This record gives sequence, C-alpha cells and structure tokens, in this order.
Amino acid sequence: MSDTPDSAVRTYIEEHRDAFLGDLAEWLRIPSVSAQPAHDADVRRSAEWLAAKLAETGFPVAEIWPTPGAPAVFAEWPSGDPDAPTVLVYGHHDVQPAAREDGWHTEPFEPQIVDGRMYGRGAADDKGQVFFHTLGVRAHLAATGRTAPAVNLKLLIEGEEESGSPNFRALVESRAARLAADAVIVSDTGMWSETTPTVCTGMRGVADCEISLYGPDQDIHSGSFGGAVPNPATVAARIVAALHDADEHVTIPGFYDGIAPLTDAERELIAELPFDEASWLTTAKSYGTLGEAGFSTLERVWTRPTAEVNGIGGGYQGPGGKTIIPSSAQLKLSFRLVAGQDPDHVEKAVRQWVAERIPAGVRHEIAFGAATRPCLTSLDHPALQSVVRAMSRAFDGQKIRFTREGGSGPAADLQDVLGAPVLFLGVSVPSDGWHAPNEKVELDLLLKGVETTAHLWGDLAAALR
Amino acid sequence: MSDTPDSAVRTYIEEHRDAFLGDLAEWLRIPSVSAQPAHDADVRRSAEWLAAKLAETGFPVAEIWPTPGAPAVFAEWPSGDPDAPTVLVYGHHDVQPAAREDGWHTEPFEPQIVDGRMYGRGAADDKGQVFFHTLGVRAHLAATGRTAPAVNLKLLIEGEEESGSPNFRALVESRAARLAADAVIVSDTGMWSETTPTVCTGMRGVADCEISLYGPDQDIHSGSFGGAVPNPATVAARIVAALHDADEHVTIPGFYDGIAPLTDAERELIAELPFDEASWLTTAKSYGTLGEAGFSTLERVWTRPTAEVNGIGGGYQGPGGKTIIPSSAQLKLSFRLVAGQDPDHVEKAVRQWVAERIPAGVRHEIAFGAATRPCLTSLDHPALQSVVRAMSRAFDGQKIRFTREGGSGPAADLQDVLGAPVLFLGVSVPSDGWHAPNEKVELDLLLKGVETTAHLWGDLAAALR
Repeated sequence: MSDTPDSAVRTYIEEHRDAFLGDLAEWLRIPSVSAQPAHDADVRRSAEWLAAKLAETGFPVAEIWPTPGAPAVFAEWPSGDPDAPTVLVYGHHDVQPAAREDGWHTEPFEPQIVDGRMYGRGAADDKGQVFFHTLGVRAHLAATGRTAPAVNLKLLIEGEEESGSPNFRALVESRAARLAADAVIVSDTGMWSETTPTVCTGMRGVADCEISLYGPDQDIHSGSFGGAVPNPATVAARIVAALHDADEHVTIPGFYDGIAPLTDAERELIAELPFDEASWLTTAKSYGTLGEAGFSTLERVWTRPTAEVNGIGGGYQGPGGKTIIPSSAQLKLSFRLVAGQDPDHVEKAVRQWVAERIPAGVRHEIAFGAATRPCLTSLDHPALQSVVRAMSRAFDGQKIRFTREGGSGPAADLQDVLGAPVLFLGVSVPSDGWHAPNEKVELDLLLKGVETTAHLWGDLAAALR
Repeated sequence: MSDTPDSAVRTYIEEHRDAFLGDLAEWLRIPSVSAQPAHDADVRRSAEWLAAKLAETGFPVAEIWPTPGAPAVFAEWPSGDPDAPTVLVYGHHDVQPAAREDGWHTEPFEPQIVDGRMYGRGAADDKGQVFFHTLGVRAHLAATGRTAPAVNLKLLIEGEEESGSPNFRALVESRAARLAADAVIVSDTGMWSETTPTVCTGMRGVADCEISLYGPDQDIHSGSFGGAVPNPATVAARIVAALHDADEHVTIPGFYDGIAPLTDAERELIAELPFDEASWLTTAKSYGTLGEAGFSTLERVWTRPTAEVNGIGGGYQGPGGKTIIPSSAQLKLSFRLVAGQDPDHVEKAVRQWVAERIPAGVRHEIAFGAATRPCLTSLDHPALQSVVRAMSRAFDGQKIRFTREGGSGPAADLQDVLGAPVLFLGVSVPSDGWHAPNEKVELDLLLKGVETTAHLWGDLAAALR
C-alpha cells in the first residue's frame, strides 16, 4: 500500500528533529500579526523567511505572491513523473495578536519548549502545521530514495487568514492555472484530542446579511403614538423570532433544499467520538445546549445549517429608559451552510421570506455579503482514504476517526475555484489554545504530522493515479 | 349656574389684554431650559419672576420651593369661605431647549406677536398656559366683586417637567399637606384643534423595564458553536415577538386585568372627533398604522395599554458582519397603562412571563423603573362638568368634546399622593409646535383660557361644595 518503510521515516525524522524545531522557533519569533498594521513589515518578513526556507528544503519554485494586503507564499516541487497527480497544500503564515499581559506565561514571540510542548504564538495556528510539511517531504524523499516527491507538490501559504482572508479568493482566481491540483490538503485544523486522532472531512459554509428596518422618520413619543404605528425594532425581533420553529428548525421555505439526510453510517461515526458535553460547554463558554430537535450537539455544529443573529440594534441603548418608538432597527444574520445548500438559493429564499414579514409603514433594505460555500469530502473518496492510511501509520496503526468543522474558511475558495476536493490534515488539539494566551503545540503530535506527510505523498500518488 | 356675568369678564380681559401679553413676553424672555445646566440660573430667575408676578396678582402666598434640581413655585389664595373647596393648578415654568439655527424664524427667547400669534419658546408649553391663570383669577374677582377667589386656589408650577420631573414626586410627597386639594387642574395640555374645543379626561400611565440576557461568557464563534447553544439576542427577539399575538393583543397573562371595557358612549365621543388619519400619520412621522384589532387609532393611543420595545441591542452592531454568537443582549420595554391597571400587578405579570421565556443556559436580569399610574376622570364627575361648562361659556356656547392623552405625566403623582381627581384645562393646539422650532400660542385661544378660568372658580365652588 506504500513504498515507504515506516522505520526509515522515523529514523530520518529523529535525526532532523532538533534542526526542524530550531527552524520553527526562528519563524515563530517573527510576529506576523496581520490584523495590526504595525506588524505589516513582520508579515512580509515572515513570508520571505518561509519562501527562503522552502527553497532550502528543495522546492525548485518558492515565490512571494503579493496581494493588496499581506503577501502569500507559493512553492512548487514537480514530481517529474508525467502521470503523477498534483496536490496543493494550504496554510497561513500570519498569526493572531498576542501580548504578554494577555496572560502569557512566556513571551508570545519568544518560543519556549517546556515538557514536550512548544509555546508561542503561531505554534499550532498555523506555523507549526505549515512547517511539518518541510520535514515531511524530506523524510518522504529520504525513505524512498526519490529526488522529487511522488506527487507534484504545491504549497500556498497565505498571509491574511487571521484577518478574514479578504484578498484570498481574488488571489486564487487570478493564479488558478498555477494552483491547479487534483486535491487540496488543508493543514489549518486539528484533531479531536491527543488520544483520538481524526481527519476532518468538511466545513460548513456561511452566508450573511444585514437588514435595516425603517419606521418613523425619527424616534417618536411612545405615549403619543404607541400602540398605533409599527415599531421597526419589533419588526426586527419578529423576524429573528420567526427564523425557527419550536423544534429550532429553520422555517424559511427552501432553506434546507439540497441537503442529503445524514446517513446512519455518518451518525455512527460521529457517535463513536468520545464526546463530553460538560467539557464541550466549557470550550463554548456556554451554560446550556439548545438546537435542532433530532440531532446531537456534534451533529448540530457539524452537519446542520443554522440561522443565527450576530447582531441586533434599535432604539435607545444608553443608560436608563427612553419612551420612544425607534425610527429604525438593524439586524445582522448569518447562515451556516452544509453540503448541498446553494448560497444563491439561500439568499433568494431569505430575501423573499424577510420581505413577507415587513408590515405596511415599515421599509426595509437587505444586503448580503460574499458567501463561503460548504465543503465536504465523501468518506469513500480515494484521497481521503489515503490521508487516513498515512495518518494511521504515523499513529502506530491507531483507528482514525472522522470530524467535521462547524466554521467556514478560505479552503472553500480553493474547492470552488480549482474544482478539487478539499482534505484536512491537522494535528493540533483543542488544548493548543488557538487565538488564546499560551498557545502551544504538542511536539509528539507535530512530529506525527511530519510522519503522516512523509507517508502521504506516496500513498496519494498511487490512490489518485 | 354661575355668578359671573360673561360680558363683565370679557370687558375686564379686553382692558388688561395688552399688559397681560406684555408680562407673558417678559417671562418668555427668560430661557428657563431645565435640561441645560448652563441655564440653571435662568430657571431660578424664571421661578423668582413668576413668584413675584403671582404676589403682584394678589396671591397672599407665593413661594419658591427648592428641590435637588430646579425650583418650583407655589402660590395660594384662600377663599375666606370655610366651606369653599380647594383647587390645585399644576403647570411648569421650564421650557425645552431652543436655538435660532434649529429653524426658528425669530429668536426663540425674544417673543414676537405676528398675525394674532405669540411666537417664542414656552409660549404654549407651558408658560402661556400657566400665565392665563393670573389674568383669569383677576377677571373672576372683577366680574364677581369678590376680594378672594370662590375656591381656595393653589398653584404648583414645577421647574423640571421638560427634564422628566425627577424630583416632582418627592416634592409632592414632602409637601402633601400644603398641596391638599379637592381637585387638580392641569394646564399643560391642549385641545383637539382651533375649531374643536376639547377637554382632556385622562392620561395613560407607564411602567418600564430593562432586561439583560446573558449567554456565553464572551462572544463565541458562530461556526464552532452555532446551532447548538442558546443565543441571548435570539432570546431577546423572541421575548419581543411574543409580547403580541397576531391581533396585536398583548399576550402577557394578567396584563389587561382591571381594565373596564370601553363603553359605547366613550367610543361615540371619540368617533365624534374629526380625525384624519393622513394628517395624524404626518404628525406621527409614520407611514402606516398598526395596532390592536378591534380598536380605532385614537382608541389605541388613548384607551388601550401597550407593550413597546424602546430599545434592543446585542452582539455586533458595527459596520460589516461578524460571525459571533453574542455574549449578551439587552431590552428596554415600556408598557403604557390605562385606568384600572395596577403597575405593581403588571410588573409581577411581566417578570413571571419573561422568566418563563428564558431557556436553560441563559441567565437574565430584569429591573423596573418607577411607574407612573394612569389617570382618568369620569365624564360625570362634577368637577369635570364644571370645566366643560366654563369652557363652553368662553367658547360662545360651542359644544365641548373630550380627548385623552396617550402620554404619561407628573399629574398622575398629584392624583396618587393627594387623592384628588385630575382635570385637564389647556387651550394649546397641535399646530403650536411643542418642543419644535417656532413654538407659538394663538392669542385668541390664550384669552379663551383666561376666560374659562374666570368662569371656572365660581362654577367649581358650587359644583364641589
């Protein structure tokens, strides 16, 4: 099933472990915070550092791709085999803001190894997980005696993921020919836990809109007029309240169109995971679960679409009271989408449904942002099977389970533009503290990531041929 | 029915008209804006000016009553007759802010008479309507040959009405003995129109509350958790939406307790008024009517209680979108109350109803402000009949119709604390522009107010004896 003797891979990784960790630490010292203009130069420096490191690793092509914002890094290492499939790895080199006073025990940009963990901003999200591809491809070559990878390997490492990837879609569209691939491997996710290795098979998409509701020309006296004219804040509230029925199903006609029912097999795979509601709630910083009847919590966040109010505002919000009928109200809604849903169809359905809920005397405007499509790779897709096999070898034959991601990401743009299936390979764990103080990566798991990719390229080359 | 020959009253008023208007203009020149600290001294000066003018008018007692805010003026003129009833007149000497650049055609604090109207801030609200009591009582004395009014006449003219009367209730409670009266006459309202003289028979009360809803400890990611935890903004919206049924009836159990059904007679009196919905909507700056099924617009704003959202806020309200589940949401609700409703009972009903709507995982707090009770004087109350008779004489025998006021005011405190019925005597008209630029009073109507009070004291003395 593979051409790579596992022991050779492990030996190579063990021999190069210290240099690999030293290089990662050097990269983590560059505070590539894309959200803070003061760090613009650092983000550029991070891209340059990575491009140089990829060239040093052996990638014949390693380029900085500028965008109107922060630069991305593109690298390519052709297989040399005309029949070899092409794989594109996605990650990002920018990081979340971090400051010692936020609660870090060490300086966030001075990485430290303590008890088998490397602490530092970006250790897990996402520099560590990008970086395991460097040693991984070298181990793949060393163990197989190849001089080029078994697949045509491409890397696209963007610099604005932590700022919402504002220029990513345009970048991918303008460079689509060079990015063309048979499969996309996203290394910007994680596993269920240290002891439960998993592969993520999909992400939800998202569509969002802003609704403005206009009633009286100005705030008017609720005594003089109250009870006789429509209140736009009431209209806003009624729209939100009408989004769901008593079972928390979304009521918008057509909203669920195209969604295949969850199969028994899919439900069993989710139910196999050692889910603990109390600890999930702690992560969610929440005090209770509430969701669509007939689905478990994991099914709700991974496999079901949502209609959520992200913001609502209208009338007087200062201290004390003010007896007015507000002149206007605003709503920000977002809809998480799952495989089968078409964002354009959802937008049309929402627009019509909202319009039907506006009483005479109230005017409304509704504007949608750019949607992100859902992506889901079938469990029997050969590339997904490859990832599972490679990961299982790295994890000593342990059973690999499956997760999904409730969030939405730029990976969907790669799927859309390149028409390639998206696979997720990540070894981060929930305790790694993404976006939080004391972010870390487990070194054992990081090296499992290296080992997985060392096995993956050969396996994928065979599976996709 | 009266001891005052109408012609003598008119002659007296005609002879003193110019001096009366000159004095009023002098008072209007004092910018007694209670809401602007820069005018604190002007508000005090206004109180002193009025107290001096009331003493000059003949009131043996004319005092400044300090409060923690702006001072009130109290004056008293005993009848001398041990059987005479006591009447307390309420008004206010503070005014709304005004500046030439708001759209005034003249300086707001330099009153001008143009085409039978006096323009200036406070001309109608409320200095003009307070001031007609000075010439009124003199005309009453002149026409009857009395040296003291037929009733024990008291005036309480507060200085903070335009700032929400924050100290009024405490003032009335602490001075209840001196304010004791058999009837209260509020001269801070108006009539239906120039051609339809009316008496207002009541005001709605108001109770208000602020509800805070707490979900996750901080805003959380709507992708990672959306669809599985309660959203406090959704809970807020559901509370607002559940306030009314499809007929716009308030759904809170017990909310309508104590309200007597509107009688056919009451409905006919309201229907008699020349109501024009288009012009009412213009005044309401609104584009449609919406209210409780089975009631006309005037019935809705005068005779029916409401549940209104004055403010709602939760989650992200800035530009663009943010895919979060908000940590908290806030609601400001107010409930207009009508005769028969008990604010304490309403508060209890709302608290219980809200508590039943909070899902597991959401915590709520609810705080009520001080409520203002509704007040309504029965159409067959002898004091109300007196006001109608006196007004009809001033208006040349014209039929006096009845209105109510949808707003709520400090008059209710007088009713509550003093236990006296509240009657409304005002001659302002909707075109007078309360709180707006170019506020004015119609001089003909102002003098009708003088004339009404000249007739009223003798009539009331007989009616309440």
